[in-house]
Amino acid sequence: MPDKNLNGLLVHTLKDVYFAENAILKALPKMAKAAKEPALQKAFQTHLQQTEGHVVRLETVFKLLKLKPEGVPCEAIKGILKEGDEVGEEFDGGSALDAGLIAAAQAVEHYEIARYGALKAWATELGLGQAANLFGETLTEEEATDELLTGLSKKSNKMAVAA
Amino acid sequence: MPDKNLNGLLVHTLKDVYFAENAILKALPKMAKAAKEPALQKAFQTHLQQTEGHVVRLETVFKLLKLKPEGVPCEAIKGILKEGDEVGEEFDGGSALDAGLIAAAQAVEHYEIARYGALKAWATELGLGQAANLFGETLTEEEATDELLTGLSKKSNKMAVAA
Repeated sequence: MPDKNLNGLLVHTLKDVYFAENAILKALPKMAKAAKEPALQKAFQTHLQQTEGHVVRLETVFKLLKLKPEGVPCEAIKGILKEGDEVGEEFDGGSALDAGLIAAAQAVEHYEIARYGALKAWATELGLGQAANLFGETLTEEEATDELLTGLSKKSNKMAVAA
Repeated sequence: MPDKNLNGLLVHTLKDVYFAENAILKALPKMAKAAKEPALQKAFQTHLQQTEGHVVRLETVFKLLKLKPEGVPCEAIKGILKEGDEVGEEFDGGSALDAGLIAAAQAVEHYEIARYGALKAWATELGLGQAANLFGETLTEEEATDELLTGLSKKSNKMAVAA
């Protein structure tokens, strides 16, 4: 069953992540608007631009595999983003809003780190060096964004201790 | 608004993770049963035992905060586990089943790493040293499980290249 081998799994996950990145593209402007600290707003805006690049990389991989770019609904990212929305609403007007938004964004980053880590390993195993490099480039950016958010969280956490 | 400060965010996220850990407790036996490689079956069983310990740690934190242990529906883990179910069904009988199960489990681990990382930082900021230590212990186990799964994936990926 060739569609149930590693190549099939890579294609399935590629479509899953393509859906996820497009969902994140829609969510980030809302998160940037909700954030209070200018540095956090800027981080979300910068990551929006990076995410546009991630979508282009995925489309390049589709092309390398001679496939039409298409997404399959990714329940994971839908749930993670929904949870972020809820935190944004629940903590709106409170001192912990930014801390909550950062944690929600880090859950998104970690989902992507898991997915791109697997995709990179699978592409390498399948001898798809160019695809592996593209996945690796995005992986590096997701990891850097996660670290950047950890840095920003230090101030947001301190500001959120007060009521 | 004290319920919208860092303490409120910590309590909200504690309930979220309590729900998530209990959902993972239910999912792991199914994943262990679905896995083909004995080493992967064993890894899921071991993580089931660890997860029981994580639930106990969370209950200890509830107690420290003088709260009754209770979960709030965690849309993120519901989505992540649903996606794992789908991969298990879709790749059932195929060579990439274990590779897909490992990737699904790593998405779970990364969600938990994001959550426990935030909880540990928030507890530290709030001067809740004992809670911070408990979150940190679980965080270390989740990170170790993620690394263990990466190790197991090397064999599963190789076996999945063939149709």
